[in-house]
Amino acid sequence: MKSLSLNKITSKGKALYLAYDQGLEHGPEMDFNDNNIDPLYILDIAKKGKYNGVVFQYGIAEKYYKEIKKSKVPLILKLNGRTKLVSGEPISAQLASVKDAMNLGAKAVGFTIYIGSEHEEEMLEEFAKIRDEAYVHKLPVIVWIYPRGKKIKNDVSRENLAYSARTALEIGADIAKIKYGGKKDDLKWAVKSAERTKIVIAGGVKKNEKKFLKDVKDIMGSGAIGLAVGRNVWQAKDPLGITKKIKKIIWG
Amino acid sequence: MKSLSLNKITSKGKALYLAYDQGLEHGPEMDFNDNNIDPLYILDIAKKGKYNGVVFQYGIAEKYYKEIKKSKVPLILKLNGRTKLVSGEPISAQLASVKDAMNLGAKAVGFTIYIGSEHEEEMLEEFAKIRDEAYVHKLPVIVWIYPRGKKIKNDVSRENLAYSARTALEIGADIAKIKYGGKKDDLKWAVKSAERTKIVIAGGVKKNEKKFLKDVKDIMGSGAIGLAVGRNVWQAKDPLGITKKIKKIIWG
Amino acid sequence: MKSLSLNKITSKGKALYLAYDQGLEHGPEMDFNDNNIDPLYILDIAKKGKYNGVVFQYGIAEKYYKEIKKSKVPLILKLNGRTKLVSGEPISAQLASVKDAMNLGAKAVGFTIYIGSEHEEEMLEEFAKIRDEAYVHKLPVIVWIYPRGKKIKNDVSRENLAYSARTALEIGADIAKIKYGGKKDDLKWAVKSAERTKIVIAGGVKKNEKKFLKDVKDIMGSGAIGLAVGRNVWQAKDPLGITKKIKKIIWG
Amino acid sequence: MKSLSLNKITSKGKALYLAYDQGLEHGPEMDFNDNNIDPLYILDIAKKGKYNGVVFQYGIAEKYYKEIKKSKVPLILKLNGRTKLVSGEPISAQLASVKDAMNLGAKAVGFTIYIGSEHEEEMLEEFAKIRDEAYVHKLPVIVWIYPRGKKIKNDVSRENLAYSARTALEIGADIAKIKYGGKKDDLKWAVKSAERTKIVIAGGVKKNEKKFLKDVKDIMGSGAIGLAVGRNVWQAKDPLGITKKIKKIIWG
Amino acid sequence: MKSLSLNKITSKGKALYLAYDQGLEHGPEMDFNDNNIDPLYILDIAKKGKYNGVVFQYGIAEKYYKEIKKSKVPLILKLNGRTKLVSGEPISAQLASVKDAMNLGAKAVGFTIYIGSEHEEEMLEEFAKIRDEAYVHKLPVIVWIYPRGKKIKNDVSRENLAYSARTALEIGADIAKIKYGGKKDDLKWAVKSAERTKIVIAGGVKKNEKKFLKDVKDIMGSGAIGLAVGRNVWQAKDPLGITKKIKKIIWG
Repeated sequence: MKSLSLNKITSKGKALYLAYDQGLEHGPEMDFNDNNIDPLYILDIAKKGKYNGVVFQYGIAEKYYKEIKKSKVPLILKLNGRTKLVSGEPISAQLASVKDAMNLGAKAVGFTIYIGSEHEEEMLEEFAKIRDEAYVHKLPVIVWIYPRGKKIKNDVSRENLAYSARTALEIGADIAKIKYGGKKDDLKWAVKSAERTKIVIAGGVKKNEKKFLKDVKDIMGSGAIGLAVGRNVWQAKDPLGITKKIKKIIWG
Repeated sequence: MKSLSLNKITSKGKALYLAYDQGLEHGPEMDFNDNNIDPLYILDIAKKGKYNGVVFQYGIAEKYYKEIKKSKVPLILKLNGRTKLVSGEPISAQLASVKDAMNLGAKAVGFTIYIGSEHEEEMLEEFAKIRDEAYVHKLPVIVWIYPRGKKIKNDVSRENLAYSARTALEIGADIAKIKYGGKKDDLKWAVKSAERTKIVIAGGVKKNEKKFLKDVKDIMGSGAIGLAVGRNVWQAKDPLGITKKIKKIIWG
Repeated sequence: MKSLSLNKITSKGKALYLAYDQGLEHGPEMDFNDNNIDPLYILDIAKKGKYNGVVFQYGIAEKYYKEIKKSKVPLILKLNGRTKLVSGEPISAQLASVKDAMNLGAKAVGFTIYIGSEHEEEMLEEFAKIRDEAYVHKLPVIVWIYPRGKKIKNDVSRENLAYSARTALEIGADIAKIKYGGKKDDLKWAVKSAERTKIVIAGGVKKNEKKFLKDVKDIMGSGAIGLAVGRNVWQAKDPLGITKKIKKIIWG
Repeated sequence: MKSLSLNKITSKGKALYLAYDQGLEHGPEMDFNDNNIDPLYILDIAKKGKYNGVVFQYGIAEKYYKEIKKSKVPLILKLNGRTKLVSGEPISAQLASVKDAMNLGAKAVGFTIYIGSEHEEEMLEEFAKIRDEAYVHKLPVIVWIYPRGKKIKNDVSRENLAYSARTALEIGADIAKIKYGGKKDDLKWAVKSAERTKIVIAGGVKKNEKKFLKDVKDIMGSGAIGLAVGRNVWQAKDPLGITKKIKKIIWG
Repeated sequence: MKSLSLNKITSKGKALYLAYDQGLEHGPEMDFNDNNIDPLYILDIAKKGKYNGVVFQYGIAEKYYKEIKKSKVPLILKLNGRTKLVSGEPISAQLASVKDAMNLGAKAVGFTIYIGSEHEEEMLEEFAKIRDEAYVHKLPVIVWIYPRGKKIKNDVSRENLAYSARTALEIGADIAKIKYGGKKDDLKWAVKSAERTKIVIAGGVKKNEKKFLKDVKDIMGSGAIGLAVGRNVWQAKDPLGITKKIKKIIWG
């Protein structure tokens, strides 16, 4: 029993991931244009920007298997997902297995949990099985963990950020992807709550570049090991330009 | 890990399928007459019209196994289905397995997913298992993917068509069967959203022939690889006549 | 892959079955008297009347195993059932397996599906598994298929009879047991809808003999292969007398 | 395929069991005092009273394994149960397996089914699996079968008693434990409805001794093979005294 | 079949455990400060205080595996849990297996059951499977058992304490962790109700030291074998000081 190495998806203990599961989570109309709708456009950014990983669902990972392999960008296979079209308390469907991840050459797996949802139990139990199976194959597990449900008033409150981060530790995630609510001290508390589980921050909706880079600085100052960016990069006019700026903040 | 070949169910990259799962989905009263109620009538059209595949549920595929085999029309086995009699959010029951498909000599499998339904998660998870099993046997997977549920106002809106098509890609379908809402530009956007997942269009209810052929032209102009027709052919007075016209548009 | 033989449960392509699952479905108070409450009374009728099969639930089939075997009446083991005491949309519980049927020497299995029920999906999926397993053992599958649920106004309408019969074909039943609504033309349409799946008609509640025999004539004139009778026989004063009359109509 | 022997849990075809699952079903406050709260007190009564079986849940059977074994009282392991604290339609949780029963040296297993509950289907299906597994090991199956749920007005009506008893036969129980509503004729009808499934009567709440013994006489006169007593014995001042009186009625 | 030994998690038949699953159950904001948020702080108390066990969820047990092993504090792996963010009747998700416990070197496993919850059945059934598996590996099973749900007015009433304790015995737990309602006689009754299942008391929210130590005396006078403390120790200014005082009461 020993901790997994995160070497394949970090550099000097820090990380920058390119997330691209929005096609399923939000639909093309909301986030995509004629360029970024193409997985190869994203893969190209990830490759040239030397990202520590690119996040794809099974379908893209399989249909672009050769290009991903050739790019040498570490694949982070997202194992569950949902459309935004469903009403009611959120649940994410398991769309791929750890075995799929191994077959596709993934270097880590991702899994979404909505704590606070009426379906929390089901997602936690699916997660536990995936965690155990991934452990056998020495695949790090990254949990996308967001408070969501009737009782949740503010999903980025100090309390909820820390609760998300801590839950990730308690259930055995290697890395937790959480949101940033704009208050550095709250994030510090969340990072502290996660202890040996590493924290990366979701980039979220496209923001003004200056504002976004300010956030990146605060995030890195909080003890998080990095970010999983998406729209702020691949919706940008100059994705590699903004990438360079983010990386400079992360690695100095 | 490499993409499946669609050779057995396409010609020169294009496809025309004859769909015949309406007996279960709608009931005989709604769609059938004394001729087309007979699976042999349909199989005869598929054979003489040289369709790239005929879509049957398990029962018909098994009870007409010899005739289907002899016809050499590629069998596309539909693996799930439901009656229209049930109230509430739609869910399609799994009625056959990939193993059934192999036993019946199918060349592809079909699976319905209602994105937006409260049962979306269950259908997505069943799909993922079927996809993995079909992959092992090199059987292409065609997903019938329709937005349905409380939040869905217009299932053929630009946004929903693209969302359906993209979901098919993200979850790893080889071909997605979606509807056409009558706007060519919207369909182009959906085809673009699906990227390496191919799009075929559902023929839908019987239309005026002229109107229907106009639609076929628009559909083929959008980048879709073809159609899965049913009622517009087997409810027509001259099924082979209309077939010939459709094929001329598809293959020129 | 070839069709199952129905030889063991038909004579010259026609069939008369004695159904006796009312003890579970309706309870003794509703249908039974001091005679017909005894399975041996029923078995005796089945034997002397040379029925093509007698329908029992697991418990009776097991507790009267020796007598059933000795009688040489083909056993049709009903695999699911429910009490009438439950509120809400109907679902039938799986009470026996195909393996049980084999152990008990059954010559066919029976399975109830309520199409239109909110639990339709669950019953369809259980059916599909049973069908596949029965196929391996060459056991014919008879489906008791009735429309039931919020959307169903008239379960013996022309539309619903045909829908039931067609569903039986689409899902791969060998024989479908449906109701008769009293209109011969509607039944013909249902028989036509079922195509290669054979139709037998449920006898239903006890009727005036003349009326009942008139129905039997219409049923046989519709293309159905026979009936599954119960109360109209074992509630009759002279069960063998009425049996003889029914058989005369069926086989002439 | 042949019927199980009930020899290990009957004497001359009659039976008296000591039931002690009230700790889980009702809680200690309702039924227990400082004496009868102790399983050894109950085991002592069962041993000295030469009961045909003592009914325990898994926990007691395991924690008092040595004493039970030494006592030579046949163990009837109850396989499911619930607390009375839950609202809504009743369901009994499976707490032990047939394998557990074999490991603990049980001579029969017990299983509760609430017919009429919205969860009837789930209990029936669990029962069927247990029945099949018990059959392999030649362990008799005793079903605690009670009508319960929205539609049930009177759970000891003639109709409901007979329905319970008949259901036990139809599903394949060897013995059914039902209630007695105070009308001997109704019970006779229930016993008749059960046919080859044996009937034992639940003792129920503590009654006046005279009244209780009168009931025992009526029960034995109805064709039931005996009783499963609990509170009327272990809440009595002289448990062995009342036991002797009951046995005298049963065996004469 | 023989009872498990509790030797590895007791001393002279008594026990003091350090519970630390509050990070998942309550979230960091509610219970933690900069010191006690760190699992190593807790482990240090457990080691220096010579606790009979420390309770961790899987994530902490795995990420701090080396330190726990080195500390020689017996690990009690909690196998299920939930966040307090979910609405509705409580259910605890299974987050680790008995196999996980073995891999992590645990000396016992913990499992929460909310009797009275609409999900009681599901938790009871999961528990039964874990109990059987743990039995094979000779791992003691500790059940956190609390009445919770619509029907529960006072979860520490005499009746509910005894019901919790008794349920633990009936279902086969080795040790039951219950609450103390402040009335020694009620607790004595609960301890009596549990018979051979041992009782430990949950420390609960931080109390005035004097009041808390008074409670500990009453608890030990009731027949309970000890306590599982958490906040009253690791929120205290001098955790080892209070530990010493508690131990003096327990072991004299």
